[in-house]
Amino acid sequence: MPLDCGAALGPFTMAYRTYGTLNADRSNAILICHALTGDQFVIDRHPITGKPGWWSILVGPGLPVDTNRYFVICSNVIGGCMGTTGPQDIDPATGSPYGLNFPVITIPDMVRAQKLLIDHLGIDKLFCVIGGSMGGMQVLEWASRYPEHVFSCMPIATAARHSAQNIAFNEVGRQAIMADPDWCGGAYQILDKRPHAGLAVARMAAHITYLSETALHRKFGRSLQDRKGITYGFDAEFQVESYLRHQGITFVDRFDANSYLYISRAMDYFDLAADHGGVLANAFRVNGQGTPVRFCLVSFSSDWLFPSRESRAIVHALNAAAANVSFVEVETDKGHDAFLLDEPNFHQVAHGFLEGCAEHRGLTPPRGPR
Amino acid sequence: MPLDCGAALGPFTMAYRTYGTLNADRSNAILICHALTGDQFVIDRHPITGKPGWWSILVGPGLPVDTNRYFVICSNVIGGCMGTTGPQDIDPATGSPYGLNFPVITIPDMVRAQKLLIDHLGIDKLFCVIGGSMGGMQVLEWASRYPEHVFSCMPIATAARHSAQNIAFNEVGRQAIMADPDWCGGAYQILDKRPHAGLAVARMAAHITYLSETALHRKFGRSLQDRKGITYGFDAEFQVESYLRHQGITFVDRFDANSYLYISRAMDYFDLAADHGGVLANAFRVNGQGTPVRFCLVSFSSDWLFPSRESRAIVHALNAAAANVSFVEVETDKGHDAFLLDEPNFHQVAHGFLEGCAEHRGLTPPRGPR
Repeated sequence: MPLDCGAALGPFTMAYRTYGTLNADRSNAILICHALTGDQFVIDRHPITGKPGWWSILVGPGLPVDTNRYFVICSNVIGGCMGTTGPQDIDPATGSPYGLNFPVITIPDMVRAQKLLIDHLGIDKLFCVIGGSMGGMQVLEWASRYPEHVFSCMPIATAARHSAQNIAFNEVGRQAIMADPDWCGGAYQILDKRPHAGLAVARMAAHITYLSETALHRKFGRSLQDRKGITYGFDAEFQVESYLRHQGITFVDRFDANSYLYISRAMDYFDLAADHGGVLANAFRVNGQGTPVRFCLVSFSSDWLFPSRESRAIVHALNAAAANVSFVEVETDKGHDAFLLDEPNFHQVAHGFLEGCAEHRGLTPPRGPR
Repeated sequence: MPLDCGAALGPFTMAYRTYGTLNADRSNAILICHALTGDQFVIDRHPITGKPGWWSILVGPGLPVDTNRYFVICSNVIGGCMGTTGPQDIDPATGSPYGLNFPVITIPDMVRAQKLLIDHLGIDKLFCVIGGSMGGMQVLEWASRYPEHVFSCMPIATAARHSAQNIAFNEVGRQAIMADPDWCGGAYQILDKRPHAGLAVARMAAHITYLSETALHRKFGRSLQDRKGITYGFDAEFQVESYLRHQGITFVDRFDANSYLYISRAMDYFDLAADHGGVLANAFRVNGQGTPVRFCLVSFSSDWLFPSRESRAIVHALNAAAANVSFVEVETDKGHDAFLLDEPNFHQVAHGFLEGCAEHRGLTPPRGPR
């Protein structure tokens, strides 16, 4: 597969999971695109952490993304570390792990690989493409690149380009990884090392950006961890410190440091307008006409990583491209993470949008009680 | 000197600079309190970086803090690394550098040490105490602890307690330092090492919080550094990355990693209300009465590290303590860093407040043209 950087990747593996049943028309397939540190385990227990799937609150039998009704697909992105080919896999050219010899990938590259998978599954037109954060970037890329193969889509808590502040936060994470001597210039696998300390710091810094100041205050405030008074030291004395350290420590068990570098870099490079002469609306025009894809955008009021104004900019461009678009800003104090959490208003919007699209698409309602 | 943690520190050195001349009444002294990574070089060239003093835009002859009129004092905080005793100095008990044997210090400890300096200089009552960020915390502590020795004060871009989000960001910085093997459990000096990589990452993460998203977008956007197109790699390809890396690399030349741990920890512990039965107003009451100190608070509209609501909470408490208080929220897109930058409205407020206080204090105007 040719990549944006000019190199080619292949042969490569795509690891994916499906849920539900593809109907006879092959018209009920929903592709879910995961975020920076997500993976294909949308519903089922994670094979490493043993935790429930990352979107099991939204996807499943009788849930808004109803697996009784839809055939749901999710694949690990290229560059990832949960089965799809990434920097930790063997480079056929050398017989050693790629490490930093893995080609730099982009959001369009991820989507190009997903298209091959969808073709392989014999699906011509996806009923819907759904994703939040970096997943939302992939959704936008799908709608832009393959408008004839996407009936509807839901870009959630995302942006059409990565902001300077977000590039800055990603760069801090990368520098934390690269500053770890166990990173070994990216060749840690061969040397049987792992830059766990650096990757944990990267995760901690990123994790703050996933929450809102209000949520942090509500959850932790200045409460102390397992003690009555302050003890004057550098232990995790405040609950928020303990929580952050836990986020860092557990992350390194399930994620590869080089994958973090590559995938975060792909987000930085994403700039849909730049790929279309600097005019975002052009990304959605098909032969100079409006796009046939139906859009539903969702943002969260307290998300400061992908603030609502980013979604509004996309809505403006979609309006200029005469798209069928709806947009909901969900009021919540849960920050960027809200797309993964129990947000009834968001789930109601998702349910309603899919119901409406299903009717237009002529999908029959599922049998039996819901 | 007894410390909040129960230990005692001594003998210890206070490094300070003064500007202007103390008048015969000793009534024209202004104490400036510096921020986390600041120092006593308010006006003069920094001895290590060679750059102009960090507040030379605000302090100097004819400037709002007019050194023709006032006697300005600034001391390096205890725990610091520019001359005042800190973790890099020799522990008299062992003959080796303190490292992590340095006692954990607090904002009240810093202020207690400053009070000794002011006593030493023969000044009974400071005309004004001024500081931004962590400097503002010291200002609040001065007004609370020594109301009879402070005529007026200006807490700028600060808070009466460190928020959960700010503790979280500080913790990321500390973890970045401690993750660096060259930190050596804090004993790097004896081993002739320096945790430069970890300290640089800490500085990069913190630096993002000093700016606003708008300022980052205005200054850098998605502009590339010294190249026409993206090159698909992990170099500092975007200007914002290059800028951040520069901030990290230059910082390690002038700052000590252990000092960073101790001073950031002092900020985390700061909670003025908690020290006064949980009621912030009580921090400012003198014998159950109102405080004699005159207050001028300043916040900046785009500061998300110390947002305006933190200043408003202080103003409410001061009103409850019947204080003479004014508060200005300066409209700016420059974020927390605005207190160090060319912000004419802020400078006008500072000038006006000091003029008014000087009149009440009976300070004669400076001779000659301004």
